Amino acid sequence: MPLPILALASDHGGFEMKALLAADLSLLGWAALDLGTTGPESVDYPDFALAMAQALKEGRAERGLLICGTGIGISIAANRHAHLRAALVHDAFGARMCRQHNDANVLVLGGRTTGPEIARDCLRLFLETPFEGGRHARRVALLGDLGEK
Amino acid sequence: MPLPILALASDHGGFEMKALLAADLSLLGWAALDLGTTGPESVDYPDFALAMAQALKEGRAERGLLICGTGIGISIAANRHAHLRAALVHDAFGARMCRQHNDANVLVLGGRTTGPEIARDCLRLFLETPFEGGRHARRVALLGDLGEK
Repeated sequence: MPLPILALASDHGGFEMKALLAADLSLLGWAALDLGTTGPESVDYPDFALAMAQALKEGRAERGLLICGTGIGISIAANRHAHLRAALVHDAFGARMCRQHNDANVLVLGGRTTGPEIARDCLRLFLETPFEGGRHARRVALLGDLGEK
Repeated sequence: MPLPILALASDHGGFEMKALLAADLSLLGWAALDLGTTGPESVDYPDFALAMAQALKEGRAERGLLICGTGIGISIAANRHAHLRAALVHDAFGARMCRQHNDANVLVLGGRTTGPEIARDCLRLFLETPFEGGRHARRVALLGDLGEK
Protein backbone atom coordinates (compact mmCIF):
# COMPACT_ATOMS: atom_id res chain seq x y z
CA MET A 1 0.00 0.00 0.00
CA PRO A 2 1.43 3.42 -0.86
CA LEU A 3 2.19 5.73 2.04
CA PRO A 4 -0.22 8.58 2.74
CA ILE A 5 1.17 11.94 1.61
CA LEU A 6 1.71 15.05 3.71
CA ALA A 7 2.09 18.29 1.74
CA LEU A 8 4.51 20.76 3.33
CA ALA A 9 4.73 24.49 2.60
CA SER A 10 6.24 27.48 4.36
CA ASP A 11 7.46 31.00 3.83
CA HIS A 12 11.04 32.08 4.57
CA GLY A 13 10.27 32.02 8.31
CA GLY A 14 9.63 28.28 8.20
CA PHE A 15 11.77 26.59 5.57
CA GLU A 16 14.30 25.23 8.08
CA MET A 17 11.61 23.73 10.32
CA LYS A 18 9.92 22.31 7.22
CA ALA A 19 13.14 20.49 6.26
CA LEU A 20 13.57 19.19 9.81
CA LEU A 21 10.03 17.81 9.94
CA ALA A 22 10.13 16.37 6.42
CA ALA A 23 13.02 14.19 7.60
CA ASP A 24 10.76 12.61 10.24
CA LEU A 25 8.01 11.60 7.86
CA SER A 26 9.21 8.23 6.63
CA LEU A 27 9.61 6.94 10.19
CA LEU A 28 6.05 8.09 10.85
CA GLY A 29 4.79 6.18 7.81
CA TRP A 30 4.10 9.20 5.60
CA ALA A 31 5.58 10.50 2.34
CA ALA A 32 6.37 14.20 1.74
CA LEU A 33 5.18 16.53 -1.01
CA ASP A 34 7.26 19.70 -0.67
CA LEU A 35 5.50 22.79 -2.06
CA GLY A 36 8.33 25.21 -1.09
CA THR A 37 9.77 27.65 -0.19
CA THR A 38 13.29 26.27 -0.11
CA GLY A 39 15.47 29.16 1.07
CA PRO A 40 15.69 32.33 3.16
CA GLU A 41 14.60 34.76 0.41
CA SER A 42 11.54 36.77 1.46
CA VAL A 43 8.27 35.41 0.01
CA ASP A 44 4.57 36.04 0.73
CA TYR A 45 2.91 33.48 3.02
CA PRO A 46 -0.54 33.68 1.34
CA ASP A 47 0.97 32.19 -1.83
CA PHE A 48 2.01 29.06 0.09
CA ALA A 49 -1.37 28.69 1.76
CA LEU A 50 -2.87 28.79 -1.72
CA ALA A 51 -0.47 26.12 -2.96
CA MET A 52 -1.57 23.94 -0.02
CA ALA A 53 -5.25 24.51 -0.78
CA GLN A 54 -4.70 23.43 -4.38
CA ALA A 55 -2.69 20.34 -3.44
CA LEU A 56 -5.38 19.07 -1.07
CA LYS A 57 -8.20 19.98 -3.44
CA GLU A 58 -6.54 18.02 -6.25
CA GLY A 59 -5.95 15.02 -4.02
CA ARG A 60 -2.17 15.24 -4.30
CA ALA A 61 -1.90 14.93 -0.51
CA GLU A 62 -4.07 13.71 2.35
CA ARG A 63 -3.02 16.36 4.86
CA GLY A 64 -0.79 19.39 5.12
CA LEU A 65 1.77 21.20 7.23
CA LEU A 66 2.15 24.98 6.96
CA ILE A 67 4.80 27.13 8.65
CA CYS A 68 5.50 30.86 8.79
CA GLY A 69 7.34 32.89 11.41
CA THR A 70 4.54 32.82 13.98
CA GLY A 71 2.04 30.61 12.12
CA ILE A 72 -0.51 33.43 12.41
CA GLY A 73 -0.48 34.83 8.90
CA ILE A 74 -0.38 31.49 7.10
CA SER A 75 -3.19 30.08 9.29
CA ILE A 76 -5.45 33.03 8.43
CA ALA A 77 -4.66 32.56 4.73
CA ALA A 78 -5.23 28.79 4.85
CA ASN A 79 -8.60 29.05 6.54
CA ARG A 80 -9.88 31.27 3.72
CA HIS A 81 -10.28 27.92 1.92
CA ALA A 82 -13.38 26.03 3.06
CA HIS A 83 -11.83 22.59 2.55
CA LEU A 84 -8.89 23.38 4.86
CA ARG A 85 -9.18 23.19 8.62
CA ALA A 86 -5.81 24.69 9.55
CA ALA A 87 -4.91 24.53 13.24
CA LEU A 88 -2.20 26.76 14.66
CA VAL A 89 -0.65 24.64 17.37
CA HIS A 90 2.01 25.35 19.99
CA ASP A 91 2.27 22.10 21.92
CA ALA A 92 1.20 18.47 22.23
CA PHE A 93 -2.15 19.33 23.75
CA GLY A 94 -3.11 21.51 20.79
CA ALA A 95 -1.86 18.91 18.32
CA ARG A 96 -4.06 16.22 19.89
CA MET A 97 -7.09 18.43 20.31
CA CYS A 98 -7.07 19.78 16.77
CA ARG A 99 -7.44 16.22 15.52
CA GLN A 100 -9.84 14.95 18.22
CA HIS A 101 -12.21 17.92 18.18
CA ASN A 102 -11.63 19.85 14.95
CA ASP A 103 -10.63 17.10 12.49
CA ALA A 104 -7.88 19.48 11.36
CA ASN A 105 -6.36 18.51 8.01
CA VAL A 106 -3.57 21.09 8.12
CA LEU A 107 -1.16 21.56 11.02
CA VAL A 108 0.26 25.07 11.35
CA LEU A 109 3.42 25.84 13.30
CA GLY A 110 5.45 28.97 14.03
CA GLY A 111 8.95 28.47 12.68
CA ARG A 112 10.32 31.24 14.91
CA THR A 113 8.12 30.63 17.96
CA THR A 114 8.09 26.86 18.50
CA GLY A 115 11.25 24.89 19.17
CA PRO A 116 12.32 21.93 17.03
CA GLU A 117 11.54 19.10 19.48
CA ILE A 118 8.11 20.54 20.31
CA ALA A 119 7.43 20.85 16.60
CA ARG A 120 8.39 17.19 16.01
CA ASP A 121 6.09 16.15 18.87
CA CYS A 122 3.22 18.19 17.39
CA LEU A 123 3.65 16.66 13.94
CA ARG A 124 3.69 13.10 15.27
CA LEU A 125 0.52 13.66 17.31
CA PHE A 126 -1.19 15.42 14.41
CA LEU A 127 -0.53 12.43 12.17
CA GLU A 128 -1.41 9.74 14.74
CA THR A 129 -4.50 11.13 16.50
CA PRO A 130 -7.96 10.24 15.16
CA PHE A 131 -11.02 12.51 15.05
CA GLU A 132 -13.52 11.81 17.82
CA GLY A 133 -16.68 12.63 15.86
CA GLY A 134 -19.87 12.86 17.88
CA ARG A 135 -20.88 16.41 18.87
CA HIS A 136 -17.66 17.64 17.25
CA ALA A 137 -18.80 16.40 13.84
CA ARG A 138 -21.75 18.83 13.93
CA ARG A 139 -19.38 21.73 14.60
CA VAL A 140 -16.88 20.64 11.95
CA ALA A 141 -19.71 20.48 9.42
CA LEU A 142 -20.46 24.14 10.17
CA LEU A 143 -16.86 24.97 9.17
CA GLY A 144 -17.45 23.73 5.63
CA ASP A 145 -19.19 26.91 4.58
CA LEU A 146 -17.31 30.03 3.55
CA GLY A 147 -18.47 33.25 5.16
CA GLU A 148 -20.19 36.11 3.39
CA LYS A 149 -17.93 38.02 1.05
CA MET B 1 -15.11 61.13 21.75
CA PRO B 2 -16.87 57.79 22.21
CA LEU B 3 -14.68 54.84 23.16
CA PRO B 4 -13.81 52.32 20.45
CA ILE B 5 -15.79 49.10 20.81
CA LEU B 6 -14.42 45.59 21.19
CA ALA B 7 -16.90 42.79 20.43
CA LEU B 8 -16.43 39.70 22.59
CA ALA B 9 -17.76 36.21 21.87
CA SER B 10 -16.97 32.72 23.11
CA ASP B 11 -18.36 29.24 23.41
CA HIS B 12 -18.77 27.48 26.76
CA GLY B 13 -15.01 26.90 26.91
CA GLY B 14 -14.36 30.63 27.07
CA PHE B 15 -17.16 32.47 28.82
CA GLU B 16 -15.25 32.89 32.09
CA MET B 17 -12.16 34.28 30.37
CA LYS B 18 -14.43 36.56 28.33
CA ALA B 19 -15.92 38.01 31.53
CA LEU B 20 -12.46 38.46 33.03
CA LEU B 21 -11.18 40.33 29.99
CA ALA B 22 -14.32 42.43 29.56
CA ALA B 23 -13.64 43.82 33.02
CA ASP B 24 -10.27 45.18 31.82
CA LEU B 25 -11.64 47.08 28.86
CA SER B 26 -12.60 50.40 30.41
CA LEU B 27 -9.12 50.85 31.87
CA LEU B 28 -7.71 50.16 28.41
CA GLY B 29 -9.97 52.82 26.88
CA TRP B 30 -12.36 50.46 25.10
CA ALA B 31 -16.05 49.64 25.47
CA ALA B 32 -17.42 46.07 25.34
CA LEU B 33 -20.07 44.56 23.08
CA ASP B 34 -20.80 41.10 24.48
CA LEU B 35 -22.13 38.68 21.85
CA GLY B 36 -22.33 35.70 24.26
CA THR B 37 -22.27 32.95 25.36
CA THR B 38 -22.94 33.70 29.00
CA GLY B 39 -22.84 30.33 30.75
CA PRO B 40 -21.41 26.80 30.81
CA GLU B 41 -24.10 25.19 28.63
CA SER B 42 -22.61 23.52 25.56
CA VAL B 43 -22.90 25.63 22.39
CA ASP B 44 -21.32 25.47 18.92
CA TYR B 45 -18.30 27.72 18.40
CA PRO B 46 -19.00 28.43 14.68
CA ASP B 47 -22.18 30.29 15.69
CA PHE B 48 -20.16 32.74 17.76
CA ALA B 49 -17.60 33.29 15.02
CA LEU B 50 -20.52 34.15 12.73
CA ALA B 51 -21.92 36.62 15.28
CA MET B 52 -18.49 38.27 15.37
CA ALA B 53 -18.32 38.46 11.57
CA GLN B 54 -21.71 40.15 11.48
CA ALA B 55 -20.86 42.63 14.25
CA LEU B 56 -17.69 43.79 12.50
CA LYS B 57 -19.32 43.87 9.09
CA GLU B 58 -22.14 46.06 10.40
CA GLY B 59 -19.70 48.41 12.11
CA ARG B 60 -21.03 47.64 15.58
CA ALA B 61 -17.46 47.13 16.81
CA GLU B 62 -13.96 48.07 15.66
CA ARG B 63 -12.27 44.83 16.70
CA GLY B 64 -13.10 41.49 18.25
CA LEU B 65 -12.06 38.91 20.82
CA LEU B 66 -13.00 35.25 20.33
CA ILE B 67 -12.44 32.42 22.81
CA CYS B 68 -13.10 28.67 22.74
CA GLY B 69 -11.42 25.88 24.68
CA THR B 70 -8.21 25.88 22.64
CA GLY B 71 -8.98 28.77 20.29
CA ILE B 72 -8.44 26.41 17.36
CA GLY B 73 -12.02 25.76 16.27
CA ILE B 74 -13.22 29.34 16.63
CA SER B 75 -10.17 30.70 14.77
CA ILE B 76 -10.84 28.38 11.81
CA ALA B 77 -14.48 29.48 11.78
CA ALA B 78 -13.64 33.18 12.04
CA ASN B 79 -11.17 33.11 9.17
CA ARG B 80 -13.85 31.75 6.85
CA HIS B 81 -14.93 35.41 6.72
CA ALA B 82 -12.71 37.50 4.44
CA HIS B 83 -13.07 40.68 6.50
CA LEU B 84 -11.79 38.99 9.66
CA ARG B 85 -8.12 38.43 10.33
CA ALA B 86 -8.38 36.27 13.43
CA ALA B 87 -5.08 35.53 15.19
CA LEU B 88 -4.80 32.65 17.65
CA VAL B 89 -2.30 33.90 20.19
CA HIS B 90 -0.64 32.27 23.18
CA ASP B 91 1.63 34.97 24.56
CA ALA B 92 2.78 38.58 24.36
CA PHE B 93 4.99 37.96 21.34
CA GLY B 94 2.09 36.62 19.30
CA ALA B 95 -0.19 39.45 20.44
CA ARG B 96 2.30 42.07 19.27
CA MET B 97 3.19 40.32 16.04
CA CYS B 98 -0.40 39.74 14.94
CA ARG B 99 -0.92 43.50 15.03
CA GLN B 100 2.48 44.55 13.65
CA HIS B 101 2.61 42.07 10.77
CA ASN B 102 -0.91 40.75 10.17
CA ASP B 103 -3.09 43.77 11.10
CA ALA B 104 -5.27 41.25 12.96
CA ASN B 105 -8.71 42.65 13.82
CA VAL B 106 -9.77 39.68 15.96
CA LEU B 107 -7.72 38.26 18.85
CA VAL B 108 -8.34 34.57 19.55
CA LEU B 109 -7.46 32.93 22.86
CA GLY B 110 -7.80 29.44 24.31
CA GLY B 111 -9.95 29.64 27.44
CA ARG B 112 -8.62 26.29 28.68
CA THR B 113 -5.05 26.61 27.44
CA THR B 114 -3.93 30.15 28.31
CA GLY B 115 -3.83 31.42 31.88
CA PRO B 116 -5.69 34.54 32.98
CA GLU B 117 -2.72 36.90 33.39
CA ILE B 118 -1.23 35.89 30.05
CA ALA B 119 -4.63 36.46 28.45
CA ARG B 120 -4.86 39.96 29.98
CA ASP B 121 -1.39 40.74 28.68
CA CYS B 122 -2.33 39.52 25.19
CA LEU B 123 -5.48 41.64 25.10
CA ARG B 124 -3.66 44.80 26.17
CA LEU B 125 -0.96 44.33 23.53
CA PHE B 126 -3.54 43.49 20.87
CA LEU B 127 -5.38 46.74 21.58
CA GLU B 128 -2.28 48.95 21.89
CA THR B 129 0.02 47.74 19.09
CA PRO B 130 -0.18 49.42 15.67
CA PHE B 131 0.17 47.75 12.28
CA GLU B 132 3.59 48.23 10.69
CA GLY B 133 2.42 48.33 7.08
CA GLY B 134 5.19 48.23 4.45
CA ARG B 135 5.82 44.76 3.01
CA HIS B 136 3.24 43.38 5.44
CA ALA B 137 0.49 45.45 3.81
CA ARG B 138 0.99 43.56 0.54
CA ARG B 139 0.54 40.23 2.33
CA VAL B 140 -2.47 41.44 4.31
CA ALA B 141 -4.10 42.57 1.06
CA LEU B 142 -3.77 38.99 -0.22
CA LEU B 143 -5.80 37.82 2.80
CA GLY B 144 -8.82 39.83 1.65
CA ASP B 145 -9.85 37.24 -0.87
CA LEU B 146 -11.81 34.13 0.04
CA GLY B 147 -10.45 30.90 -1.37
CA GLU B 148 -12.08 28.74 -4.00
CA LYS B 149 -15.18 26.96 -2.85
